Amino acid sequence: MSSGPAIILVRPQLSENIGTAARAMLNNGLTDLRLVAPKPDWLSDRAIAAASGADRVVLGAKIFDTTAEAVADLNRVWATTARNRFMVKPVDTPRTAAAAMLDLTAQGVKFGVLFGPERTGLENDDIVQADTVVTVPLNPDYSSLNLAQCVLLIAYEWYQAQGPELPERHMTKGAADIATKEKLEGFFQHLERELDECGFLRIADKRPVMVRNIRNLFQRAHLTGQEVQTLHGIVHELVTYRHRKGQGTT
Amino acid sequence: MSSGPAIILVRPQLSENIGTAARAMLNNGLTDLRLVAPKPDWLSDRAIAAASGADRVVLGAKIFDTTAEAVADLNRVWATTARNRFMVKPVDTPRTAAAAMLDLTAQGVKFGVLFGPERTGLENDDIVQADTVVTVPLNPDYSSLNLAQCVLLIAYEWYQAQGPELPERHMTKGAADIATKEKLEGFFQHLERELDECGFLRIADKRPVMVRNIRNLFQRAHLTGQEVQTLHGIVHELVTYRHRKGQGTT
Repeated sequence: MSSGPAIILVRPQLSENIGTAARAMLNNGLTDLRLVAPKPDWLSDRAIAAASGADRVVLGAKIFDTTAEAVADLNRVWATTARNRFMVKPVDTPRTAAAAMLDLTAQGVKFGVLFGPERTGLENDDIVQADTVVTVPLNPDYSSLNLAQCVLLIAYEWYQAQGPELPERHMTKGAADIATKEKLEGFFQHLERELDECGFLRIADKRPVMVRNIRNLFQRAHLTGQEVQTLHGIVHELVTYRHRKGQGTT
Repeated sequence: MSSGPAIILVRPQLSENIGTAARAMLNNGLTDLRLVAPKPDWLSDRAIAAASGADRVVLGAKIFDTTAEAVADLNRVWATTARNRFMVKPVDTPRTAAAAMLDLTAQGVKFGVLFGPERTGLENDDIVQADTVVTVPLNPDYSSLNLAQCVLLIAYEWYQAQGPELPERHMTKGAADIATKEKLEGFFQHLERELDECGFLRIADKRPVMVRNIRNLFQRAHLTGQEVQTLHGIVHELVTYRHRKGQGTT
């Protein structure tokens, strides 16, 4: 897998946000963390605690005095910002940025994303270092993202862009366990035999649609072989108990 | 805009995570926050501070004693989990789940997502309340997400899905017909009462897992209200015929 984008935190104010950002990075396979002019005491216990196992990303962080130095080795830079900075730049969403990053990776290009201080965001002098602005589409009435959550969304889209995602709607248990239609048919016949006997299907002109509806709901459940056995057991027990009780009362 | 999914935090342990989750919700236009058995002191200053302007989502949270009560009015429920719970369920990614939610919204269906406690995650008895599992594709070597960050990714994909692209999945039947979890619970109790009486569940130490597995297979079927009535009728007829026959033979 590609090393992905460098995550560049410009003048971060809260050291626990550095730890939480590192965690969000490692969740998505990213490890290149860069800090521009962090506070002298940034490497605190709170930062390590917030990293929650992603310590190596925090401890491996590279420190720079200026944004220009932090991006010096990169070919392509995005700047995260929610506000219009009166600067003419193309704007990506995290998803379109991730697609572009994937293209750059194939070309062996190095790239990174700038994130501003918690309260103020990136300044124009930082943003001018970037080729492109990336803005997360969010509720226009409440769009302020926590720094680490902004890092998470950029890193997440990068990881998803590499795919493959989990197969859509795959089962949490081997789908090979799913019953054959023959086993299902066997249960349907067992159930319908008993429903005929007990009179549930006694109205002849309604029987076909009732049978179809009953079969349909079980078809939809993707039953496993074991579950079909369980359903056989349920019907069998309800019925044999009925017979046992019948005999018991004679 | 649609109200989107209810966000249901099951037994949350840290009140600041409730606040951070509320912030992530409002960032993405969500406001229906539900808490199952939170700690008595959950509504703390830390929760409000972490909400950082999303106070109204925290203050509007609905409190429930059980997961079943929290989902009673919903037609469709997802459970977030990273682990295979040995339960056969379809699995969505946040993106495929969001596409399905958009589809349900168009049909006026109510839905929600369950999130487990920080350390332990959801228990099987919570997950069985859900139709579908949702798992975030992440770095397999480091996939543990902070609770609020998991909420953010689900809410973010929901918000992004409301773009122009068409929903990816369609139910062949109007999902508005899908039974509420309350109706489903009524059938489960009816069925289990009869299975207790007829002895199918007589082995005490196997009963909980058998009940869970039976409930799970019906949960997965996305039963309509009419189909739940049909199942009530099936059980009722099998049982009353048994009694009628019992009487008939005295």
